[in-house]
Amino acid sequence: MASEKPILYSYFRSSCSWRVRIALALKGISYDLVPVNLIKDGGQQFSAEFKALNPMQQVPALQIDGITLSQSLAIINYLEETHPNPRLLPQDPKKRAQVRMIADHIASGIQPLQNLSVLKQMGEKKMEWAQSCIISGFQALEQILQHTAGRYCVGDEVSMADLCLVPQVANAERFKVDMRPYPIITRINKALLDLEAFKISHPSRQPDTPAELRA
Amino acid sequence: MASEKPILYSYFRSSCSWRVRIALALKGISYDLVPVNLIKDGGQQFSAEFKALNPMQQVPALQIDGITLSQSLAIINYLEETHPNPRLLPQDPKKRAQVRMIADHIASGIQPLQNLSVLKQMGEKKMEWAQSCIISGFQALEQILQHTAGRYCVGDEVSMADLCLVPQVANAERFKVDMRPYPIITRINKALLDLEAFKISHPSRQPDTPAELRA
Repeated sequence: MASEKPILYSYFRSSCSWRVRIALALKGISYDLVPVNLIKDGGQQFSAEFKALNPMQQVPALQIDGITLSQSLAIINYLEETHPNPRLLPQDPKKRAQVRMIADHIASGIQPLQNLSVLKQMGEKKMEWAQSCIISGFQALEQILQHTAGRYCVGDEVSMADLCLVPQVANAERFKVDMRPYPIITRINKALLDLEAFKISHPSRQPDTPAELRA
Repeated sequence: MASEKPILYSYFRSSCSWRVRIALALKGISYDLVPVNLIKDGGQQFSAEFKALNPMQQVPALQIDGITLSQSLAIINYLEETHPNPRLLPQDPKKRAQVRMIADHIASGIQPLQNLSVLKQMGEKKMEWAQSCIISGFQALEQILQHTAGRYCVGDEVSMADLCLVPQVANAERFKVDMRPYPIITRINKALLDLEAFKISHPSRQPDTPAELRA
């Protein structure tokens, strides 16, 4: 099993799937992609077939080395431990902690609150709610980056924090959040989007990207 | 700075604070606790003083080794790297990935959805919403544990996954979730609550626990 190509279950627009696509691209791991459409047929992630693969009924899921993993940061940590180059965590424990703090702030503190399942519950207040979650998250993040950022979120090397940042900014843009109050986030996001790994993993360039959204 | 005692900013009932209290107890790290009342005065986490310390305006936050960390799993990972004994992550990368997958499933997939800020938005549907988030999360978790659990969530050693499990089960009980469909979660939770580190870190035994809730 270990020698087979990994299979990534992904949805072009899922920000959590994008995090993993960036990690795979940065580490030069080739993989097969199986699209899971979160909207079509009431959500293909709810099919019995997919549930058997990932009981969490979410993308991303990665079949690799004979196991199936879910949760984007758990997958990225596994890739980091099994394919250490290039590293996505700094060597210094304090800097590693800053990277994880920023990644978790986005992955636990912002993204889940503006996720599809929550938005459905919010009805008419949907847009307003998503914006307020992202705005309060970005206000905190901008302050934190004042202390940690170099060219990227923590210093000058791309880290797990950056893999979370770019997809979250894309969500902010979809929800029409005014990005002017966040100059550091905006600058880092732009610098990251210039990198090849962020380009080829972009939602506009996936096998399941609808024609009208293709780059 | 490095030799000073760490300071944990904590709220007795915060499930994320409890995760960190368990880690500190397991690793035998002594610390000072500063209570932050998330309800009183409109939420003490929103004070200018606390915001300067933690821009995320959340507990837990830990001042340690000259830095201030927030996000419970980032804090626990830092403690794991700087105080490796006893280990909270298995040595095998696949088992580590399982631990992280379960921890992230709770920390990103369940807890944030039943957090105070979301519940406020849900108005009358509050209880029903919290229950449905926990139930769908626990259904997935119970299935995953069928493959990973030994005495605890992953095998027979206490791990980061267990530090997330116990506080989440306590939340489920507060929201009156029927636990009968989750025999593995229930069994592991009970075994963990027998351990000293889980007992002394319990919400019922904190300096800020109100008298009527004390054990």
